[in-house]
Amino acid sequence: MARTFRFLVTVAGMIAALAVTAEAADDLKRPTGYRHWFHVNTMVVDKASPLFAVLGGMHNVHVNSVGEAALKKGGSYPNGTMFVIDLHDFSLDDGTYVEGALKGLALMEKDSKKYASTGGWGFQFWAGGDPKKPAVTDATKQCFECHQPKKDQDYVYSTYIP
Amino acid sequence: MARTFRFLVTVAGMIAALAVTAEAADDLKRPTGYRHWFHVNTMVVDKASPLFAVLGGMHNVHVNSVGEAALKKGGSYPNGTMFVIDLHDFSLDDGTYVEGALKGLALMEKDSKKYASTGGWGFQFWAGGDPKKPAVTDATKQCFECHQPKKDQDYVYSTYIP
Repeated sequence: MARTFRFLVTVAGMIAALAVTAEAADDLKRPTGYRHWFHVNTMVVDKASPLFAVLGGMHNVHVNSVGEAALKKGGSYPNGTMFVIDLHDFSLDDGTYVEGALKGLALMEKDSKKYASTGGWGFQFWAGGDPKKPAVTDATKQCFECHQPKKDQDYVYSTYIP
Repeated sequence: MARTFRFLVTVAGMIAALAVTAEAADDLKRPTGYRHWFHVNTMVVDKASPLFAVLGGMHNVHVNSVGEAALKKGGSYPNGTMFVIDLHDFSLDDGTYVEGALKGLALMEKDSKKYASTGGWGFQFWAGGDPKKPAVTDATKQCFECHQPKKDQDYVYSTYIP
């Protein structure tokens, strides 16, 4: 009886662990209203960049109100901070880069407990901005490994530009 | 007596007209908080552009809440609409355009009466974003002439990109 109980506890624990893992991958929701969040900066990854295949496009970075003060001050971000990259296609018209259609939305959301294994950040990317098309299945490999060098900025590449 | 009165009325009218003209050039205030306004679009005017000398830089366009619905719907803008261009320097780093320091702030503010001679829009540009450095002294020549071809969009170049 004790043995069965222990087994059940173990199985329950495994299911709980699986549930947490599934949650970590799936619970991030595509944010809305981010074009009213503080505009952090813009970056255009052009065809000449070695990152074009993965990150090509016009990146507009926004931060929600939770993280805005930390961005300006520097240092670590409070839980609930969200950074969004509003990623668009672009075209080149006589020396001017012009914004095109939405390519995708990238999200970094801070929860130091839930996402402890990836620096306290949850990561997701929605292709075309479609809530039904999350593209990140392995946040460590697809996202966090490239953010690790920025540990001294709480894994955030963007800095405040007045 | 009647003659003197008419003369005084005329002089008063001229002074009023001068005051209005002076106001039209000087009353536009450098807006604040625009990085929380709706982010309309981004444009990078690169060195290859024939416009680089005048408009070179990374342009981030924002619209205030008064004009946001009109932007999305298309058509004419209500009085009180403000568009800001947050203009920054940029550098090119291995195929990526990276945002630099603030170069200036451009404002279009709608007041169909006050700015009737320039399509209902007041124009100003502050060099370096400095409220003490307004650069527009002749809105017609420096701004409006280039906006006239966009009459069917109420003289606004930007359109809504979802």
